[in-house]
Amino acid sequence: MEKQILELMEDKKYGRLREILSEMNPADIAEIFNEFSESELTVAFRILPKELAAETFVEMDSDMQQTLITAFSDKELKEVMDRLFMDDTVDVIDEMPASVAKRILNQTDKKTRALINQLLAYPEDSAGSIMTTEYIDLKINMTVEDAFDKIRKKGLDSETIYTCYVIDAGRRLLGIVTVKDLLLSPKTNLIGDIMDTNVIYANTYDDREEVVGLFDKYDFLALPIVDKESRLVGIVTVDDAIDVLKEEASEDIEKMAAILPSERSYLKTGVFETFKSRIPWLLFLMISATITGGIISSYENKLTMLPALISYIPMLMGTSGNSGSQSSVTVIRALSLGDIEFKDIFKVVWKELCVGIVCGAVLCLVNLLKLYFVDYKLLNNFDSGREITEMFAVCITLFFTVIVAKLVGSILPIVAKKIKLDPAVMASPLVTTVLDAVSLFIYFVVAGVLIGY
Amino acid sequence: MEKQILELMEDKKYGRLREILSEMNPADIAEIFNEFSESELTVAFRILPKELAAETFVEMDSDMQQTLITAFSDKELKEVMDRLFMDDTVDVIDEMPASVAKRILNQTDKKTRALINQLLAYPEDSAGSIMTTEYIDLKINMTVEDAFDKIRKKGLDSETIYTCYVIDAGRRLLGIVTVKDLLLSPKTNLIGDIMDTNVIYANTYDDREEVVGLFDKYDFLALPIVDKESRLVGIVTVDDAIDVLKEEASEDIEKMAAILPSERSYLKTGVFETFKSRIPWLLFLMISATITGGIISSYENKLTMLPALISYIPMLMGTSGNSGSQSSVTVIRALSLGDIEFKDIFKVVWKELCVGIVCGAVLCLVNLLKLYFVDYKLLNNFDSGREITEMFAVCITLFFTVIVAKLVGSILPIVAKKIKLDPAVMASPLVTTVLDAVSLFIYFVVAGVLIGY
Repeated sequence: MEKQILELMEDKKYGRLREILSEMNPADIAEIFNEFSESELTVAFRILPKELAAETFVEMDSDMQQTLITAFSDKELKEVMDRLFMDDTVDVIDEMPASVAKRILNQTDKKTRALINQLLAYPEDSAGSIMTTEYIDLKINMTVEDAFDKIRKKGLDSETIYTCYVIDAGRRLLGIVTVKDLLLSPKTNLIGDIMDTNVIYANTYDDREEVVGLFDKYDFLALPIVDKESRLVGIVTVDDAIDVLKEEASEDIEKMAAILPSERSYLKTGVFETFKSRIPWLLFLMISATITGGIISSYENKLTMLPALISYIPMLMGTSGNSGSQSSVTVIRALSLGDIEFKDIFKVVWKELCVGIVCGAVLCLVNLLKLYFVDYKLLNNFDSGREITEMFAVCITLFFTVIVAKLVGSILPIVAKKIKLDPAVMASPLVTTVLDAVSLFIYFVVAGVLIGY
Repeated sequence: MEKQILELMEDKKYGRLREILSEMNPADIAEIFNEFSESELTVAFRILPKELAAETFVEMDSDMQQTLITAFSDKELKEVMDRLFMDDTVDVIDEMPASVAKRILNQTDKKTRALINQLLAYPEDSAGSIMTTEYIDLKINMTVEDAFDKIRKKGLDSETIYTCYVIDAGRRLLGIVTVKDLLLSPKTNLIGDIMDTNVIYANTYDDREEVVGLFDKYDFLALPIVDKESRLVGIVTVDDAIDVLKEEASEDIEKMAAILPSERSYLKTGVFETFKSRIPWLLFLMISATITGGIISSYENKLTMLPALISYIPMLMGTSGNSGSQSSVTVIRALSLGDIEFKDIFKVVWKELCVGIVCGAVLCLVNLLKLYFVDYKLLNNFDSGREITEMFAVCITLFFTVIVAKLVGSILPIVAKKIKLDPAVMASPLVTTVLDAVSLFIYFVVAGVLIGY
């Protein structure tokens, strides 16, 4: 299919091309257009029927959108923008350089411009920033028949028609009515009698992650958003909730890997941009690792007398880091899904303590067997005369570092959330760096006590 | 609200309790019921109006469901199960012990039982396992009016009414019609004339992750699922797609932290279950770290002559691990979102190489300044006579390990996906363990060359 379209484009068979594209889904068209050169893109876009063109425009990435806007006449630009829903308009403008954004705004009437500016002003992660303003509002004294008339009249211009919002003269939200309710009610019934008054809504300044949580919990298709005076100002639809859910998961994953979150897809992000998102944490963690180096330095003289102990440092640091990151990642995810809160901290600590003891014991035992049969009997790795003591120093350290790692890994994210830091930042890299130092410290103390230096 | 309900329950004011609960959302009721004892739960559940009771039942976790089923009479059990949608029925049965599952199946008629068994047989991660069988099907020769009649008749028993599926006599899917299309068409139009024949669908055995990708791409409210003979057998609704999206993200995050994925929420998972999900990777990684230990062992004699080098091991291993996990996590996420494929491997490698060189250079420079001004001038950490050589050994190693780390971190997940392994497993812990060994190896080789031992 894709090949056929590229061929038709090359052969300039625009009539046939239009026929084929008209039957396609906007998301698929945008994907194929991504393969075109800038001039081909402009030509191909102009072939599309107007409504489909606008729908395809929304599905494009911002580079393609900018190419098109630059090529558009003012009239074309207005035609496309007028067909977009308000949330998409705001998204497009948000991604454009100031001059392009200004040109778009100039094509809109005064009232729309004011609304766009208001929407652009909401904080990036707020419900207001993802809502749209096209929805169907009803009044309590309308009949079911009236409601259907309104839906037929405004249906094409609303992002969803399946949930309608009942408001009073001051635009305060009174209830919701679904099209299912309408279809299953006699036509003369009053909206006020069939509406559901137990409405769940969010405020414009609520975190968009909480908004998505409501979709997940209540299985909504759309959620009403109200301002401080409880006036209905917009709705968030489920497709936007899915986008947010995906973005938030990506952000969490990036933060857990010590990367500053970026919004663009991997191949679209330039080398310098990727570098900028990665270097801060690398630098910070590198400097932090100096502490661990310092601990080794201070035990340097003793280590040179017991060189066998050095070779177990990577295993001890690695195992404590892995144990800790297992706990921190689990706790971060549970926090972000709302499974645990600060008040659960003791339950979490108790559980991680138990898991830590069991994991520590098993690892310790396996390690002891390996140390004895492989390192001691087979390879004779230990410093002569100190074999058993060194073996126990390694195993005892392992046991305690695993437990400490589980505790540190689980407590840090919860505390971070409590003091309004992002828990996702307390994931593997930071926890591992902390635990590197902790495990070495435990190692040298245990070895010191057992060997008696 | 919650407190009031708990009080009413204690005071046995069931009439008032029923009034309050009747106005509430099933998900909220399930949350409050979670605080009840087993006997309270059974009492409270019986207070609920029948339809709300069934909706609340679906929102409960499987422990609560099992408690209720055990307390139910056969008649009560049948009443609840008859009201569930087929996908929820299958989910409930799937979570129950065999004896309870059998009791549930015994309450259903023969045809339903056959259908349930068929749905239970789909692989866990398939589209078939998340679909439901209640939807509205239309015929091409129906009018819009007929369609509305059918929706009114079957509406309450369908999971969504907003997308209707047009099928032929052999149940083959011909097109879809949305309620929006129906509302905006004259009543006498034929379904065959207004239906959209460009239908995107999935097969029962498709991976559920791909199904969710379709929801994300096309903004669907429901997706039809067909069998091998192209017959419509069910639909997946957007709320289930959201659940899958959330679960898959959690699974990816868990795998990236070397945890075997679990399905239960954090606090509901027992210590032993958590232990079982964490110990395999801890053991495997601990044993793998032996290789790194082995590298140190083989350089042991040289290290005791240059003890200053030992203290930089944690910093080098840490930085290479962090660099590598940044790349691997970014690539894993991009693979899972479909942003990159195997054919992009050279683009990815080239990009990571560039990013690695820039990151490596910056880290190397900062480190050199720190080594010179702090470790050398201030602390005099290095072995006398070898200060400059040792300093350069550390910095050069850092530069190369960062580059190698970026390459290893980005290549491993792509290759894993190509050979049908799960790329998420190639994340931080495994990559870090590999890179520990690699960075130490580079370190000793570089030091060996520079210092000439």
